[in-house]
Amino acid sequence: MSKYIYLKEQVYEANMEIPKEDLAIVTFGNVSGIDRTAGVVAIKPSGVPYHRLRVEDIVVVDLDNALVEGNLRPSSDTKTHTLLYKNFESIGGVCHTHSTYAVAWAQAIKSIPNLGTTHADHLTSSIPVTEIMSDDMIRRDYELETGNQILDLFTKQALSYEEIEMVLIACHGPFTWGKDPAKAIYNSIVLEEIAKMAYLTLQINPDADTIKQSLIDKHYYRKHGKDAYYGQGC
Amino acid sequence: MSKYIYLKEQVYEANMEIPKEDLAIVTFGNVSGIDRTAGVVAIKPSGVPYHRLRVEDIVVVDLDNALVEGNLRPSSDTKTHTLLYKNFESIGGVCHTHSTYAVAWAQAIKSIPNLGTTHADHLTSSIPVTEIMSDDMIRRDYELETGNQILDLFTKQALSYEEIEMVLIACHGPFTWGKDPAKAIYNSIVLEEIAKMAYLTLQINPDADTIKQSLIDKHYYRKHGKDAYYGQGC
Amino acid sequence: MSKYIYLKEQVYEANMEIPKEDLAIVTFGNVSGIDRTAGVVAIKPSGVPYHRLRVEDIVVVDLDNALVEGNLRPSSDTKTHTLLYKNFESIGGVCHTHSTYAVAWAQAIKSIPNLGTTHADHLTSSIPVTEIMSDDMIRRDYELETGNQILDLFTKQALSYEEIEMVLIACHGPFTWGKDPAKAIYNSIVLEEIAKMAYLTLQINPDADTIKQSLIDKHYYRKHGKDAYYGQGC
Amino acid sequence: MSKYIYLKEQVYEANMEIPKEDLAIVTFGNVSGIDRTAGVVAIKPSGVPYHRLRVEDIVVVDLDNALVEGNLRPSSDTKTHTLLYKNFESIGGVCHTHSTYAVAWAQAIKSIPNLGTTHADHLTSSIPVTEIMSDDMIRRDYELETGNQILDLFTKQALSYEEIEMVLIACHGPFTWGKDPAKAIYNSIVLEEIAKMAYLTLQINPDADTIKQSLIDKHYYRKHGKDAYYGQGC
Repeated sequence: MSKYIYLKEQVYEANMEIPKEDLAIVTFGNVSGIDRTAGVVAIKPSGVPYHRLRVEDIVVVDLDNALVEGNLRPSSDTKTHTLLYKNFESIGGVCHTHSTYAVAWAQAIKSIPNLGTTHADHLTSSIPVTEIMSDDMIRRDYELETGNQILDLFTKQALSYEEIEMVLIACHGPFTWGKDPAKAIYNSIVLEEIAKMAYLTLQINPDADTIKQSLIDKHYYRKHGKDAYYGQGC
Repeated sequence: MSKYIYLKEQVYEANMEIPKEDLAIVTFGNVSGIDRTAGVVAIKPSGVPYHRLRVEDIVVVDLDNALVEGNLRPSSDTKTHTLLYKNFESIGGVCHTHSTYAVAWAQAIKSIPNLGTTHADHLTSSIPVTEIMSDDMIRRDYELETGNQILDLFTKQALSYEEIEMVLIACHGPFTWGKDPAKAIYNSIVLEEIAKMAYLTLQINPDADTIKQSLIDKHYYRKHGKDAYYGQGC
Repeated sequence: MSKYIYLKEQVYEANMEIPKEDLAIVTFGNVSGIDRTAGVVAIKPSGVPYHRLRVEDIVVVDLDNALVEGNLRPSSDTKTHTLLYKNFESIGGVCHTHSTYAVAWAQAIKSIPNLGTTHADHLTSSIPVTEIMSDDMIRRDYELETGNQILDLFTKQALSYEEIEMVLIACHGPFTWGKDPAKAIYNSIVLEEIAKMAYLTLQINPDADTIKQSLIDKHYYRKHGKDAYYGQGC
Repeated sequence: MSKYIYLKEQVYEANMEIPKEDLAIVTFGNVSGIDRTAGVVAIKPSGVPYHRLRVEDIVVVDLDNALVEGNLRPSSDTKTHTLLYKNFESIGGVCHTHSTYAVAWAQAIKSIPNLGTTHADHLTSSIPVTEIMSDDMIRRDYELETGNQILDLFTKQALSYEEIEMVLIACHGPFTWGKDPAKAIYNSIVLEEIAKMAYLTLQINPDADTIKQSLIDKHYYRKHGKDAYYGQGC
């Protein structure tokens, strides 16, 4: 039996949330997870439809994207995932989907403003969108450069990847991450709902404004940090 | 066996309508019910996903929010629920969701105008929206003050909580109530549909107007009050 | 056993399409069917949720709305149904829903323009909307007058109820009919889809125009009349 | 047993994706497949609802639309399908749906601009829309002329049917094709999602622009052609 079976099962379960939660059609989207002790990442194979995906199809690679275990090619987005693991040191899972409303904001090249408490429960800022990639980066090593776009955005805007666990790639779609694969896909589910709510809010009231800082802080810190009192504390 | 088993079962069943009717994702939303003789409120535990919720997880508190029965923390919104029970004396259930269209109206800080008979079947006025909470109230005792925002709105606008069983909290989302937990969640289902219909109506015709008073009265009073003739009279 | 069992089963089956096809929430909507030989109409009982509806709950009335068979009150819209049966002599079923997009057009008080072949496959004109009912009619005999609004519209605009089997009641929602209850509910399904398509078309292109007469005729007459060649001819 | 059983099963399975993926209501839509050696096309029968469709109902015709096998009339759109097979020599399946967002673009008579990588993964250009058919063509041999509209569009705009496997018929809806029936319906699923994403993108940002050529090429050619590296290479 695979020595990575537990990781592969976690990654399989998280991937299967993508079709269940309508976050992508056909073969689109992928979730990965990392075993930092072993230095390996497990990820969905490329182009496999979800209804045919099995635990044993999950591919294991190292942080240099070399194959460690598996009979299939890993997701074509693997280099984006591994770059995030190398630079966001405390994360354990990464998720990429083509969920409809998040993609629409990404295609519109607009960050999603913080318009309500559903958003503020999860992050204090807008959900950021990268710049359009340069022709040179696209042609060089596209999937790696997609990861670099995310890193550059977080550096330039001085964002914390531990607070903001989601981003929109301009003209493409969302990436999310978290402490494990389950939290990464959770964030994709939440992002899609926030994206839809923000869309509708601005259709109803094009002048709707970002909510006040005190309300953002209240909602974010009742769920995060040492004074959190939402949930069961585990 | 719990002496509150009947109440807990009612509250459990009403909570399970939230995911079934797509009124919130993941762990969001909560329904409670009150036993006025015993002076206790049963409510969803905080942060528990619906697919893992069991009857025995429902938490029982008193009207001062002190734990009466249960191994889990009650919903972080408990103080809003208990304040409503203390002030709206004839209600038996309260429901809070993050349903998408109702949240969009709340984030737009717009009351939902009475644009048709689906709305008038349930209430004669618009569905009201609170003011934005002051910084001071947010920092003091947020969930209690959320309840106070509702009470203040009903007092200032001279609204009847027995007729208008739904409200939008600005920047947040809807609360509904009713004679029991089942009626509270019923009102959340109806509110979401009215919110979607009103959104679409104004997209089709931005000049769509509130319906006439005679039509509002006809629909409301064929379902409510002594001359009601809709339903089976029970 | 009921002598109207076959009619009641047809009506029950047609009513159960309403929740299955998402044409109304909770208890809204109703389908009826007529046995013209016996002079009776079978219809959904008032205010019963679909998941509790049984064949034996279907109520039978005569064309003067007097109870013939059943333990429950008939739909509060019964007088609208019976008036249509009395005036539209060849129809065998009537359906009323609160389907979301059709209601939005009705609340916007706009007829649905014939923007494509999905529409033209079913009727050659727009889907008409009634005028707003007068206060006097609302207070007199509301459900009967709802039927009169439909009859007046068809008379004034010289429309054929045999071609146009659907109408929007201003500020309320759709009524549809057909040769039997199954065709009546079929028309409600089609109307909702046409209503959504027309909504989206005008959002994409506010100047979208009614399609040309030759295309309307081609699609309508390949499905209807003596030269029809769509379907299996039965 | 039918000598075309394998083709009929393929065509049946592809047709059943239409209701499963919500690409048409009631009886609308149809998928066909060709056996080029035998010179026959298998297609959905006309006007049969999907829940009653069986493998043995699939109709087999030759390329001149003459019946080869089957007890039912073939789809009224058969002549469009056979014309495409005669002119697009490498295709093995054709699909026509009335999917909601694709129809809305067709009714708006707008081609769908290439606004993101979900689109660019499948084709490099916009999704083209035909011109409105002339009265003369409509009255002559409508379904054949629908095919001619597609051929004329591809000729005039010098488009490759091997790259662009989807088209919108003005005022009507989409046709898609591919190497087999499964790929034809796959393309209809993808088209509907692209159509919805493009709609939402332009609602969020009416000035959203077509993505840059380098990004289009990167995404298209990582999935197509000799240097493709997406998927499992089979």
